[in-house]
Amino acid sequence: MIEQAMATALAASAAAVGVSSPNPPVGAVILDADGTVVGVGRTQPVGGPHAEVMALREAGPAARGGTAVVTLEPCNHTGRTGPCAQALLDAGVAAVHYAVADPNPQAAGGAAALAAAGVTVVGGVAEQQARRGPLRHWLFRQAQGRPLVTAKIAATLDGRIAAPDGTSVWITGPESRAHAHAQRAHLDALVIGTGTALADNPSLTARRPDGTLHAHQPARAVLGHRDLPADATLRDGAAPLVQVRSHDPRDVLAALPDALWILVEGGPAVLGAFLAAGLVDEVQAYLAPTILGDGRAAVLDSSVTTLAQAHHLRRESIAVLGEDLLITLSAH
Amino acid sequence: MIEQAMATALAASAAAVGVSSPNPPVGAVILDADGTVVGVGRTQPVGGPHAEVMALREAGPAARGGTAVVTLEPCNHTGRTGPCAQALLDAGVAAVHYAVADPNPQAAGGAAALAAAGVTVVGGVAEQQARRGPLRHWLFRQAQGRPLVTAKIAATLDGRIAAPDGTSVWITGPESRAHAHAQRAHLDALVIGTGTALADNPSLTARRPDGTLHAHQPARAVLGHRDLPADATLRDGAAPLVQVRSHDPRDVLAALPDALWILVEGGPAVLGAFLAAGLVDEVQAYLAPTILGDGRAAVLDSSVTTLAQAHHLRRESIAVLGEDLLITLSAH
Repeated sequence: MIEQAMATALAASAAAVGVSSPNPPVGAVILDADGTVVGVGRTQPVGGPHAEVMALREAGPAARGGTAVVTLEPCNHTGRTGPCAQALLDAGVAAVHYAVADPNPQAAGGAAALAAAGVTVVGGVAEQQARRGPLRHWLFRQAQGRPLVTAKIAATLDGRIAAPDGTSVWITGPESRAHAHAQRAHLDALVIGTGTALADNPSLTARRPDGTLHAHQPARAVLGHRDLPADATLRDGAAPLVQVRSHDPRDVLAALPDALWILVEGGPAVLGAFLAAGLVDEVQAYLAPTILGDGRAAVLDSSVTTLAQAHHLRRESIAVLGEDLLITLSAH
Repeated sequence: MIEQAMATALAASAAAVGVSSPNPPVGAVILDADGTVVGVGRTQPVGGPHAEVMALREAGPAARGGTAVVTLEPCNHTGRTGPCAQALLDAGVAAVHYAVADPNPQAAGGAAALAAAGVTVVGGVAEQQARRGPLRHWLFRQAQGRPLVTAKIAATLDGRIAAPDGTSVWITGPESRAHAHAQRAHLDALVIGTGTALADNPSLTARRPDGTLHAHQPARAVLGHRDLPADATLRDGAAPLVQVRSHDPRDVLAALPDALWILVEGGPAVLGAFLAAGLVDEVQAYLAPTILGDGRAAVLDSSVTTLAQAHHLRRESIAVLGEDLLITLSAH
């Protein structure tokens, strides 16, 4: 029952990834005293209610004597909203089960406060699923003090992203592009270099296959010294534009203090600069079943001169996306 | 019973791939009148007995009134050895089941000869397994008049085969190298360019993980005009050396008239020349979980200028080899 409710809470929280930043994307389920689901909630955009409050609102009086199942230890901290531990006590829940203890000293203490008030508190429920799933980026930021950085490559099997004449639309197929757009709706920011911005005039918005915009749009960060033209699509207001007049990836991270997850889209030199700086935590390589044999390479890291300096990663997963493969590698 | 025997025959024939060339790698199983396996055989190296004769020898008198299960229609042709159809009649088998009809007009007719003599003949048993498996390369040669050509890439995820300083040992891991060596023992020839021959002085022999040589060694074909030094490892006699003083991949195929399956190992320009000539039937890409960001690209096809000219293939399979992936693509 608790495991099933936690799976529901995790699924609910997945939709909050990127949307709740800088707050953690939490999911909560309220079971009544008979164990029936009477409320499901997830963290709302910043300033809005946390997951527990959303779930309690739906449950109403049915929460009394019931159980709250939450992906993160309820906060004990009055920030923009009141503490969730107090809300759970006010609602009269008899038990709280959570997945991950809050590592943030300011917000932690919810479990202890609930237990002191006589509530049964159980932590560590489905903890690994929560850590590796919806809470991954937020936990990374808590531990490392910077966002989790994913580097994206979309290339031919021989690592090319454009033919010698510059043509590059489309190397990967519609399933890969749909996957990338669905993911954008959960990112805090996309990073490109001014070279890509000027050459491609991209929009970098998160779009559905029918072309409509997702509700959440990641910020568009552009790295480099050159100016963008006044009519650049990136200036269209569809998502925030962050210009970082530098070639140092660290300056991008500093310019995005609330970001939990950013995706570096390229070009090759920007990807190389993040790799060389040790600031790539994960690589997503969308590989088409195509060989170009000439043209632009996906990554350019001019700091590498010998094989021993190669960036070695660990295979995380392989997914089939239509004709393409998505190979995900972890740097950790 | 027949299906089980055919699976045994196919497994037996797999060991003959590359070893039996230019003859087809056939497997045969003899069941006695009670359906018990009394003989298993596979095609021996050229001049030696065919699969049916090997299996009949093992079966002896037990073949009388029994059943022969063969991966290819028994030949009706007196070449270096007598016709297998006659050998089966002489042994007194009552039934013959085979997978694939012989497409070679000179050898075909075995099924008809057996049926005319009163033997029960059934074709098409597990035909697709045989066609896609051990008989694949031989059937390709019968249909196309040239060997099946596999292009091998062993690269980083970003398509590099050497760092800027030329270091390249080892990009892929021991499992990938073991797989490549096991496969070499079933190839008719390996193809490299003089550039690779001079730069790496490779042996190109098929070796077991302990360094010992496999019984069958593919020919080593070197494409290009430059001479190999007198002390080149390729001249060591461990396997035939075929020098093709040309840059035209067609000249390699002409120099290997008996080959059923050849593997093009590189370098990049040789791979590109085979691709540009439309002479790559399959690509095997061993990809390491590594990003170099600079250095030598796996493929160089200077005939490609725009994306529409990219070589588009079809994903055949994905295998995990230790840390690496082996992605196999088909051109057909």
